[in-house]
Amino acid sequence: MIERIAILGTGLLGTSLGLALRGAGFKGSIAGWNRGAGGGREALAMGAVDVIATDAIAVARASDVVVLCVPIYSTLDYMEQLAPVLTPRQLVTDVGSTKGQITAAAGRLFNTPEHAAFLPGHPMAGKERGGAALGEAGLFRGAVWLFTDDPEWKRSARGAELVSEWRGLVAAIGSRVIDVDAERHDELVAWVSHLPQFTATALSSLLEDQVGDAPELKHVGGRALREMTRLGASPFSMWRDIAHTNTAAIEAALHALEQRLAYIRENLRTPALREEFERANTFRRE
Amino acid sequence: MIERIAILGTGLLGTSLGLALRGAGFKGSIAGWNRGAGGGREALAMGAVDVIATDAIAVARASDVVVLCVPIYSTLDYMEQLAPVLTPRQLVTDVGSTKGQITAAAGRLFNTPEHAAFLPGHPMAGKERGGAALGEAGLFRGAVWLFTDDPEWKRSARGAELVSEWRGLVAAIGSRVIDVDAERHDELVAWVSHLPQFTATALSSLLEDQVGDAPELKHVGGRALREMTRLGASPFSMWRDIAHTNTAAIEAALHALEQRLAYIRENLRTPALREEFERANTFRRE
Repeated sequence: MIERIAILGTGLLGTSLGLALRGAGFKGSIAGWNRGAGGGREALAMGAVDVIATDAIAVARASDVVVLCVPIYSTLDYMEQLAPVLTPRQLVTDVGSTKGQITAAAGRLFNTPEHAAFLPGHPMAGKERGGAALGEAGLFRGAVWLFTDDPEWKRSARGAELVSEWRGLVAAIGSRVIDVDAERHDELVAWVSHLPQFTATALSSLLEDQVGDAPELKHVGGRALREMTRLGASPFSMWRDIAHTNTAAIEAALHALEQRLAYIRENLRTPALREEFERANTFRRE
Repeated sequence: MIERIAILGTGLLGTSLGLALRGAGFKGSIAGWNRGAGGGREALAMGAVDVIATDAIAVARASDVVVLCVPIYSTLDYMEQLAPVLTPRQLVTDVGSTKGQITAAAGRLFNTPEHAAFLPGHPMAGKERGGAALGEAGLFRGAVWLFTDDPEWKRSARGAELVSEWRGLVAAIGSRVIDVDAERHDELVAWVSHLPQFTATALSSLLEDQVGDAPELKHVGGRALREMTRLGASPFSMWRDIAHTNTAAIEAALHALEQRLAYIRENLRTPALREEFERANTFRRE
């Protein structure tokens, strides 16, 4: 059974994960690590972790499961650092928003009988602002947690067990597990996650130019405008690595939306507008 | 004092308005009318109106204030029908989402000493689905209610009084009144209301094509996707008249968003992406 978990990165996701594991009755130890002076102190105060480590690699070596809750390029860095020092009796998993490069690195550096196991994961949960203070035990409840596992990987018996146990913990905190291959993952999230984000960023940025000098007019839009621009508050720091590691799929999705908007613009007074509304209605019908 | 109000059109807005007036302590009579057999029965059952009229023109003639809560082209039709039969001791107002044509008709048909007054209005409140059943007393609370009054209009003394009293009732139900000229109104709502709607429609319609055959994947997007596509449920019937009566301003807004998306697409790996995120962050900062 998993007894010692290390969460590397105690921001919004790492802190929420610690709280969720405790809320689901996980009895083992949870160690946290965060970069920077005083890193992780907030997660500790909130009860998301039992202890704060000062050395990420050392705490990883002392754990059954290491959860990387850091940006994508940092995840790739830690994978390089951890692969040579971990054993086949350990599992590393992550929460990165793109899975192509991470899954490729997992196949190259982990998942042999002689290496630790690595299970690439992506919980579809988050907020438009990060930080431990916004963490909550219920963040993953009802959310989809995607895994881009590769059935060809030959893990140690203990590694395979840990993967199975970790999947059980993810289900225990209320997430719905879906398996998908890494390429399909990155294409899918380009449509259902990255496109909505970049659309909200574009709309918010455009409206800042148009009505930003008249703050009272922002309120005119009401709830509809608030919802359509909420993701405009997302920090660049969270999205830079995503834009860099899923560029082609995001380009394709953005280009398709540009074309769809142009089609609507050209058909504001033709019956084609009705068809667009009806297709949109269908998407929203459960 | 206003004693008799007629609400023509007891859909979402008309029903909510009746409920809101009662909630704010309006003591006079509220008559409702809705087209179709059994029209208005739901609003009556909900207590939004005291009585259902079978003849829209007759009930309008018997009221101090007539509120047109019907689509834009119907509003224009009723303005033509009402202008010759009402008196300078009556006020007509409306809730239409575009104000150019309605305000022009108000100047042409009303607002002289010999005619009834007309105050063009637009509450920035609604839902992605219509109908009396979704009506609620609090719909207008905290919302902006725009008026496109024209200071050059020469109303009767009683007409001017009624305008002032109606503004007071709108404030009493919790709305924030903002005055703006009709041309500026239509340009403004193209940005803060129509653009968000058509963007949600385009995004929802596009995603229906991309992932509509795999309903489980819609859930992958989580709250962000739900919010960005909620307006995709809006019915064409609510938006057709808006597209027809504010075409040029909506075209300009859509075109600007297409260009902004293209700019982001071309800069997914350049420092310009950071600037777009920062501009979007500024828009969301209160």
